[in-house]
Amino acid sequence: MKCTCSIVAAAALLLNAVSAQTFRRLGACPTLGCVFPPDQADFLAGQYFDIRLEVHQPVNGSEAIGLPLDEKFTFTIGKKGAASKPVTEYFKLQEPKLEKWNFTWFEDLFARDAKKPSLVNVASKAYRRVAIYEPGEYTATLTYNNGSSTEATWTIRDLAEERKAKNIILFIGDGMTTNMITAARLIGHKSINGKYQSLLAMDKFPVLGHQMTHSIDSFITDSANSAAALNTGHKSTVNCLNVYADSSINPFDDPKVETIAEIFHRLTGGHIGIVSTAYIADATPAALVAHTRNRGAYEAIVDQLLNGVQNYTWTDVPIDVIFGGGAEQFYPPSLGGKTYQNKNYYDEFAKQKYQIIQNRTSLLSAKNSEKALGIFTVSNMAKWLDRNVYRQNLNQSLSPAGDKKPALDQPGLKEMTLKAIDILQERSGDKGYFLLSEAASIDKMMHVLDYDRALGELLELDDTIKATIAHLNSTNCLKETLILVTADHGHGFDVMGSVDTHYLAAQNVDRKKRDAVGTYEQSGLSQYINTGNLTYTDSNFPSNWSPRYTLFQGLMADPDRREDWSVHKDGPRLPAVAANGTKDNYANPRDGSGKGILLNGTLPVGDDQGVHSLTDVPVFAMGPCQELFGGVYNSIDIFYNMAECFGLGRGTPPKQ
Amino acid sequence: MKCTCSIVAAAALLLNAVSAQTFRRLGACPTLGCVFPPDQADFLAGQYFDIRLEVHQPVNGSEAIGLPLDEKFTFTIGKKGAASKPVTEYFKLQEPKLEKWNFTWFEDLFARDAKKPSLVNVASKAYRRVAIYEPGEYTATLTYNNGSSTEATWTIRDLAEERKAKNIILFIGDGMTTNMITAARLIGHKSINGKYQSLLAMDKFPVLGHQMTHSIDSFITDSANSAAALNTGHKSTVNCLNVYADSSINPFDDPKVETIAEIFHRLTGGHIGIVSTAYIADATPAALVAHTRNRGAYEAIVDQLLNGVQNYTWTDVPIDVIFGGGAEQFYPPSLGGKTYQNKNYYDEFAKQKYQIIQNRTSLLSAKNSEKALGIFTVSNMAKWLDRNVYRQNLNQSLSPAGDKKPALDQPGLKEMTLKAIDILQERSGDKGYFLLSEAASIDKMMHVLDYDRALGELLELDDTIKATIAHLNSTNCLKETLILVTADHGHGFDVMGSVDTHYLAAQNVDRKKRDAVGTYEQSGLSQYINTGNLTYTDSNFPSNWSPRYTLFQGLMADPDRREDWSVHKDGPRLPAVAANGTKDNYANPRDGSGKGILLNGTLPVGDDQGVHSLTDVPVFAMGPCQELFGGVYNSIDIFYNMAECFGLGRGTPPKQ
Repeated sequence: MKCTCSIVAAAALLLNAVSAQTFRRLGACPTLGCVFPPDQADFLAGQYFDIRLEVHQPVNGSEAIGLPLDEKFTFTIGKKGAASKPVTEYFKLQEPKLEKWNFTWFEDLFARDAKKPSLVNVASKAYRRVAIYEPGEYTATLTYNNGSSTEATWTIRDLAEERKAKNIILFIGDGMTTNMITAARLIGHKSINGKYQSLLAMDKFPVLGHQMTHSIDSFITDSANSAAALNTGHKSTVNCLNVYADSSINPFDDPKVETIAEIFHRLTGGHIGIVSTAYIADATPAALVAHTRNRGAYEAIVDQLLNGVQNYTWTDVPIDVIFGGGAEQFYPPSLGGKTYQNKNYYDEFAKQKYQIIQNRTSLLSAKNSEKALGIFTVSNMAKWLDRNVYRQNLNQSLSPAGDKKPALDQPGLKEMTLKAIDILQERSGDKGYFLLSEAASIDKMMHVLDYDRALGELLELDDTIKATIAHLNSTNCLKETLILVTADHGHGFDVMGSVDTHYLAAQNVDRKKRDAVGTYEQSGLSQYINTGNLTYTDSNFPSNWSPRYTLFQGLMADPDRREDWSVHKDGPRLPAVAANGTKDNYANPRDGSGKGILLNGTLPVGDDQGVHSLTDVPVFAMGPCQELFGGVYNSIDIFYNMAECFGLGRGTPPKQ
Repeated sequence: MKCTCSIVAAAALLLNAVSAQTFRRLGACPTLGCVFPPDQADFLAGQYFDIRLEVHQPVNGSEAIGLPLDEKFTFTIGKKGAASKPVTEYFKLQEPKLEKWNFTWFEDLFARDAKKPSLVNVASKAYRRVAIYEPGEYTATLTYNNGSSTEATWTIRDLAEERKAKNIILFIGDGMTTNMITAARLIGHKSINGKYQSLLAMDKFPVLGHQMTHSIDSFITDSANSAAALNTGHKSTVNCLNVYADSSINPFDDPKVETIAEIFHRLTGGHIGIVSTAYIADATPAALVAHTRNRGAYEAIVDQLLNGVQNYTWTDVPIDVIFGGGAEQFYPPSLGGKTYQNKNYYDEFAKQKYQIIQNRTSLLSAKNSEKALGIFTVSNMAKWLDRNVYRQNLNQSLSPAGDKKPALDQPGLKEMTLKAIDILQERSGDKGYFLLSEAASIDKMMHVLDYDRALGELLELDDTIKATIAHLNSTNCLKETLILVTADHGHGFDVMGSVDTHYLAAQNVDRKKRDAVGTYEQSGLSQYINTGNLTYTDSNFPSNWSPRYTLFQGLMADPDRREDWSVHKDGPRLPAVAANGTKDNYANPRDGSGKGILLNGTLPVGDDQGVHSLTDVPVFAMGPCQELFGGVYNSIDIFYNMAECFGLGRGTPPKQ
């Protein structure tokens, strides 16, 4: 924010600067006058968005300045160099009613421990579904508290309106970093004297970029607001799906921003597909069309996938394909589900002419001419390692029907993605499509320090990409399709050598077990692919997940845990557990072989799993507009580049 | 190796496959017949190399097969599809004399603990300084043990001979990963609402690639053999500089490979410069021209920089500029130095008309017309943080003269690099130059977990790149100069959030201290640049290295240590120390504030610092041939791309 502050407000700002980086009152609003979208926001020309204004009156705490709550604030917009107009005049809107609420926050950890929150009164207005068409820089000015003001510079990007790609397929390896890709290549591909005899599909992409994943108000992101950045060109706050976070209590009234899927469908009639190995209401798949500050509002999100945003006029998008997990948000409470308004969402989707698919067999025989909802399990889908190697772990009560049977017949990411392409291809005709395909459990398995399963998911993603390219090539669609592979954030993971698991298991003392670690020349070569014939038909997966010499690998932000660097054959890892009735997590004594080295964590003891990291993540591009994705850039630029490739900028309003 | 083995040898191979990944008998030779360069080696057409053959007779251990040592082995070479010739005929060489030796190794950690080595007798021959000119695939075949054979496929790459760049400047951030670059950007550059207001120089490079850093015989590399891969196009073994590792005891008789600097000078008369913040005999600067299996042979390496390879006919390269640390390999033993043949290497360089420079002041006023040796300190050069912020740490007896005074007047990487460019520019005239500029202490400070100093070094590298581009632009040399920025390997580093150092220091219990860690939305924004005016003239460095909220950052392979995530104001960190007379390292009680969280390491307790990691590292390219460096490739491809850009391939032998 560029601020022109009264003396009193400036003093508050100074205080803020000194004690900054406390728990923030409201992320993207360091001053007492808040404008959303905030300063430095970029927009696609013609993109719909909401405006939220808030004036804050801190009642206590370091920011209290003794002024009454200002309910008479004003807001103007103008192109730089031209006169500003009141917002209602600029957008030809009615003045909305004033809203008022209050909220509390803790200024830092000491205040939290002392249970001394700061109270803030708020006066607010919201302007819904507006758009700016003419490219250029604009100044939006909130004036409040007798002359204080908050100025936001908004940039409407000038992009070509010509369409260059018919289709875009966006692959997201959730939490996937370059470090993980390197490790997956090591275990999945054979090398002789330092030369790989085969490579990952990603390795062969012609263009490589790095994107910066940070949030608008914190340098570590979650998957909601990072996916929103990729989908809307607007960074936001942790837990936000395609909205800026306001301070109101309602998680559905926050100011919305239109997504690439919404704009693409609105302007071109293009078709949309969503594939994920997560439960389908999870942040990344939901981010194509959901709008809420609370990514955890799963039931409402599933309804939004079918019926669009509730209670507000917004861009409506019929989604052709939805494949993933999360059956508990579909079958009704009578079967143990938890659904929006207690409905049966299989029925709701069926009413709107979706094929309802609940296993791999049905998926493969589904019609390409009809919309399809495929929900294959309760919760997240089974991992590649469990579907292919340790199949006994599928024996859990996770049937998508809600009948407590096992979900044994689950498809993989490849089968879901290829079927989605077939349906989108047939249904979209000349209009083209936008498909998201997410390998969600790279992230989920890194969270629980289950490196083997995470790398298995990454190899499955790569195998899916390879099959997608071959499939598009066989149908002559490759040249008209932009394929992107990227991530939404990282985990601090790397491989530092090898571990002689036999030697480790034979030692009785932790400090001696550490001698099992081999670094540098003693790391040797990968044993994952060198010990016998491959068991799986596709050669991109290791044949042996428990060689004697495993990878010395790990994360940098951990709970307490026991490490034996061996595959977890009994299902996804549970590294730390809390004492009964507490949130005080210790290493899970039943984790792994029981012979692992006991390691204390660095994360707060309330955490039982790892967290995301800062690192820029890679972007691989192939197809029309690939050249836009080289070098280093902000995550939001992926949205603008995709929009450019689809030709979605609109310098003038649509004719009425 | 592709092997056609006798039945007996095949059985040994099988055994080997089962127990593989033990300590290896000889890295790039899993069979009993060894060919160096080994199978899968690539070559620049016309590049000089040595050939080493070894036949092994294991006396005991799992590989002993009861055959006598074969001293009558034969070796042939032929282009694929053509007849093979005996090596002496192919290269028109005399048959060298047979060499014999033996060596011992441990098959695994159990054997090491039991002190049961395996003994191997060796018969060997070496063929020195040969070259193959005609591009294509060749088969080199060693026949031994009554019909066993080891076949190596060698590829002579077909590169254009046309020169496209006049100069190449290769910046190496030693140990620098994408993760570190992201962290350095965070503390060095200001962001408003998620949009950086300035970027790293690296961020602005038009082309981005990833290179794979693994060794020939282990997946984790050190800086010697990774630098050699970049310089020769041949991967090798840990500790090797531009040689393949044979099993002989002499570290100077291993088979050599010609470097880019050597080829460039030999073919074009181009000039060479070396700049590093390490001691100048360290692996990365030495790798331009040194040839030895033992990177630790510092004294001989310094002599090689001046006089070329000892005892063998090889490509001789006068080096115009050598700037760095490591005075103890220059001043004589009478002053406490340790030099080759006890000489004074300041004198030796002066005799060959080098300007001898020992401080920043002399550096800046040095003549551009003369060769220059600048040695500015004993050991590694002072870190940016100590030269600019905590200057009291320079008060150590490190004067380059060997007079035990402090080395207070040390230049930075930027000043050394710009002066090197001026000298090379003036001296090389139309011939052009190749300059290596290494930020060595990114790696050295990551090794000792001193994240702040490491990021300071990275920002200094970036500042150097920025200044180099500006300088080349001002002299109209930018367009004819290829600028590359890359690393030689990684460290498993990332940032996962922030730490409230005040809160951490106020807690008495380790588990409570962990609450000071803020992840996701509680990571907040970087305080490194937001708290007041910048102290330094260049805005790319933080103004405040000890804000209240620091980075929650770290490595993944550590010794025991105490973490308080605060800057080490008293000089580079010493995380772990051994009990008297032992190699049993524990957390250094004097590390940091003494208030840090005690964390147990994962590395063998003999290690007192971190280790390298697997991750692919970034490559940034700008200038002629930049398009060659996009996407994902092997580290050796950087050599071939540079050679292509300089037009160094030679499809026919030089005329006599």
